[in-house]
Amino acid sequence: MLADTPAPPYYAVIFATTRSATDADDGYEETAARMEELARAQPGYLGIDSARSDIGITVSYWCDEAAITAWRDNFEHEEARRLGRERFYESYFLRVARVERAYSWETGESS
Amino acid sequence: MLADTPAPPYYAVIFATTRSATDADDGYEETAARMEELARAQPGYLGIDSARSDIGITVSYWCDEAAITAWRDNFEHEEARRLGRERFYESYFLRVARVERAYSWETGESS
Repeated sequence: MLADTPAPPYYAVIFATTRSATDADDGYEETAARMEELARAQPGYLGIDSARSDIGITVSYWCDEAAITAWRDNFEHEEARRLGRERFYESYFLRVARVERAYSWETGESS
Repeated sequence: MLADTPAPPYYAVIFATTRSATDADDGYEETAARMEELARAQPGYLGIDSARSDIGITVSYWCDEAAITAWRDNFEHEEARRLGRERFYESYFLRVARVERAYSWETGESS
């Protein structure tokens, strides 16, 4: 259920959002699902983690900066970002970060 | 509502989790709230974003690696991490990343 990424280094795009107070049926869920599907098909895509409660956080993982640039310039993704600003989001913060260390743990492993 | 961080570079600790299927009253919420309070009081702390739906994602922001190390070695935080493995979490993935670029947007700003 959690994104399972290879050993670092790789890149993370951390996208934190607050939603607009619009009606629930504004197309947000469909657009978000479509963007996840589209991201998965991009070269250099490594995985995605997403959660939403008071705020939304989506972290996508990419093998290098070129993969992030290509994803940014995808036409359908550009359209979705425009919709995001016009309709879905009240505010967002986007951060591009280089993952330097990573640790994973599952029940049953020693601590 | 979103963490408002200074200009990069700085560090992000990305903590993605799945919860154990235990009863809701296992002390998780209190521990999580206490850890957020404790993190805020640490030197070098810059902010935190947190959301939970199918999975949980907490991203804390820190001025440098030394601040992350000091937070890791905080005794009460060590205890909470032990509780996390024993009681709260089924699995987790922790990533330490250097934030290189950041962009924020709010309703009313031009796109």
